[in-house]
Amino acid sequence: MKAKIYVTLKRGVLDPQGKAIRASLSHLGIDGVEDVRVGKFMEITLKEIGAEEARRRLDEACRRLLANTVIEEYRIEIGGQG
Amino acid sequence: MKAKIYVTLKRGVLDPQGKAIRASLSHLGIDGVEDVRVGKFMEITLKEIGAEEARRRLDEACRRLLANTVIEEYRIEIGGQG
Repeated sequence: MKAKIYVTLKRGVLDPQGKAIRASLSHLGIDGVEDVRVGKFMEITLKEIGAEEARRRLDEACRRLLANTVIEEYRIEIGGQG
Repeated sequence: MKAKIYVTLKRGVLDPQGKAIRASLSHLGIDGVEDVRVGKFMEITLKEIGAEEARRRLDEACRRLLANTVIEEYRIEIGGQG
């Protein structure tokens, strides 16, 4: 089974990488971009353990390894083909 | 207006970061994960320039700055509240 995890900075936390991207786009002449926030995105392939158990394990994975919960929040999507 | 950009490694390109995450999860006792692929995820706030124009500019942004199209592919989603 497949799952997706999105890790993003919490609202209010400064995102210097996003600011750098916005500035670079402007220098390239690509206008109209007001703000950029950068996050991580993970596509997970799991054994067939059931959606509930998968969510439990991925939640633990996020809390212990994948997200810094002081400054980041995460979202888990179970299912889908890709 | 809002947009999201997902940048992922093309199928077949090795993902050492994903492999490292999979190994770390296993060391933490979180089993059942067969594969992890890591990508980037960007939340963009744009001026109100219309969906078609927004997509055109973000496509250019991806090709020129945000994605390495030799090894990465990207997907643009226009709209949504965040």
